[in-house]
Amino acid sequence: MKHDPRPEEPIVAGIDIGGTKIAAVAVSAAGRMLSRAAIPTEAERGFEDGLQRITALVRRVLTEAQADPDNLRAIGIGCAGPVDPVTGTIDNPYTLPTWDGVNIVDPLRATFGVAVALENDADAAAMGEYWLGAGQGGRIVVMVTVGTGIGGGVIVDGHIYRGVDGAHPEIGHLALDPAGPPCYCGARGCWESIASGPAMAEGMRAARLEITGRLETTMMLGQVGTGLSGEDLGPGQPTSAPMTGERVVALAREGDPVAQSVVDRAARVTARGVFSLINLYVPDVVVLGGGVMEAYDLFEPAIRNLVERDTMAPVNRIAIRKAALGGDAGLLGAARIAFDL
Amino acid sequence: MKHDPRPEEPIVAGIDIGGTKIAAVAVSAAGRMLSRAAIPTEAERGFEDGLQRITALVRRVLTEAQADPDNLRAIGIGCAGPVDPVTGTIDNPYTLPTWDGVNIVDPLRATFGVAVALENDADAAAMGEYWLGAGQGGRIVVMVTVGTGIGGGVIVDGHIYRGVDGAHPEIGHLALDPAGPPCYCGARGCWESIASGPAMAEGMRAARLEITGRLETTMMLGQVGTGLSGEDLGPGQPTSAPMTGERVVALAREGDPVAQSVVDRAARVTARGVFSLINLYVPDVVVLGGGVMEAYDLFEPAIRNLVERDTMAPVNRIAIRKAALGGDAGLLGAARIAFDL
Repeated sequence: MKHDPRPEEPIVAGIDIGGTKIAAVAVSAAGRMLSRAAIPTEAERGFEDGLQRITALVRRVLTEAQADPDNLRAIGIGCAGPVDPVTGTIDNPYTLPTWDGVNIVDPLRATFGVAVALENDADAAAMGEYWLGAGQGGRIVVMVTVGTGIGGGVIVDGHIYRGVDGAHPEIGHLALDPAGPPCYCGARGCWESIASGPAMAEGMRAARLEITGRLETTMMLGQVGTGLSGEDLGPGQPTSAPMTGERVVALAREGDPVAQSVVDRAARVTARGVFSLINLYVPDVVVLGGGVMEAYDLFEPAIRNLVERDTMAPVNRIAIRKAALGGDAGLLGAARIAFDL
Repeated sequence: MKHDPRPEEPIVAGIDIGGTKIAAVAVSAAGRMLSRAAIPTEAERGFEDGLQRITALVRRVLTEAQADPDNLRAIGIGCAGPVDPVTGTIDNPYTLPTWDGVNIVDPLRATFGVAVALENDADAAAMGEYWLGAGQGGRIVVMVTVGTGIGGGVIVDGHIYRGVDGAHPEIGHLALDPAGPPCYCGARGCWESIASGPAMAEGMRAARLEITGRLETTMMLGQVGTGLSGEDLGPGQPTSAPMTGERVVALAREGDPVAQSVVDRAARVTARGVFSLINLYVPDVVVLGGGVMEAYDLFEPAIRNLVERDTMAPVNRIAIRKAALGGDAGLLGAARIAFDL
């Protein structure tokens, strides 16, 4: 009796390249993660060294997946931008020093003999959430990532939305407040300049300096009854650990009124950002992810409050959700991109 | 010798339904306008009456085009919204009273025996500018129409961008200034609430009232030297003709400093709107049309000044242009939509 071989499922590899670590995954067409591994990025060792280690990492996840190498269909890469998805080059002097204008697609294609695609990590994360996370089932999914910056990606009919020259939307640079701080983007008061992690930290420092100044003035003038006391400076004093968005959130949770006002302002601006995104893209789902959105519960009330009042879009058909895949969104999205190659 | 008949070119009809007039056009596949006619809308006569007159109008343009009725391929309609392009119904109690929830697609399809599509007039105008106007050659074209409101349409790869339930983007309701006036959209300080024609007129009234108040206070207190004089009220006094966006623009051109400051504010907000649209859609072309943009020269410097500083988008590849087709954009766009049916 002839043995009927179990048909082998096609698989793809996804790679997520960040400033501190590089992860790889082998995934089945059904979205099953077969294996996963990571290495430190150490970009300063140079791109050739990095490429060798990435190649070894991909071989490792394929081996650990017990996959027939012949079943590898394609490789998708999500990488901290700027990247050029058209030419396959990375040009990120900020978080990948020495990797300037390097082509990562061609050598991997030659080594593995399969199609390889490179995408911005924000687009890869959007694709991941669309495929297996909070954006599942949406025809148009807008993902907003709030962390060191505010970025994101837009998925339309299963494809990454691209503009001129393959450039992707820069969601964080909606010009939301003309009275806001100047941003490197060229405008004042864009979303990122007010509600990113560093912007919240800066808001905290500024608010404390103002309070300190008012206290000093009060003391100099010998006045009392301003309604402010040392308590208002909150548990974390200006001389303590460096301020971060995460720390502002933690202080707000502890009841620090200054931190709460900073979070409230970021939440109100974020609500206006989401409102604007909804009116422009009219998506099925808005997904909010990134480090700052770990505190989604602090942002959600302001967002829902404003969006529910939106008379222009069919808001009862539009879902707003916290991201579901955490740090794996970009990795899984990179794999999903490979299935389209 | 047998006569070789000249091959007949397929044609379509486009219809543009506005609050005051209904226009129709017969257009060849090459974009040649073969005939054009218009009638007053007179929506108050009821939809049945309107439908009969629209049917007669289409027959008239076909006759005037000397077209074989068998060559009519389809009919496209652009109509002042809200309309539902999916069901083919018009539901616009504002500018088409008595036409509430009426289906215009089914009866025209039955009468002419061809496919019929209904679109929002803003989308139709965007399609017109994309096809034959200022958006020609762009893969992604964003059209902004600034008039009584601020609306627009987005064309991607020759198709109207649609969101959930076929809803189209509401470009005028980007939330651009948290200190701006409340809007019926649910947010404060959306683009439309600051830079539409009526918003500019309201800004003019408010600025004059403020100046009048300051003058009165000055006179009551017997003070001089505030730097304000009756001249600052400008040529058009508060008691004169109703203020409109067009009138603010005209006064600004005459040198009225109050009108100039109102136009400047609208131009700065419009610049932030265009900046935001560019960062979100990364289009090849942004087209600015509508009644207020007849004064495009007053808005262009602020727009270019800000957009040229945009470090996020490939702005040297993005064109910003005044609309080219004027009031015919929606009519020609409606015809273009018919060619896709």
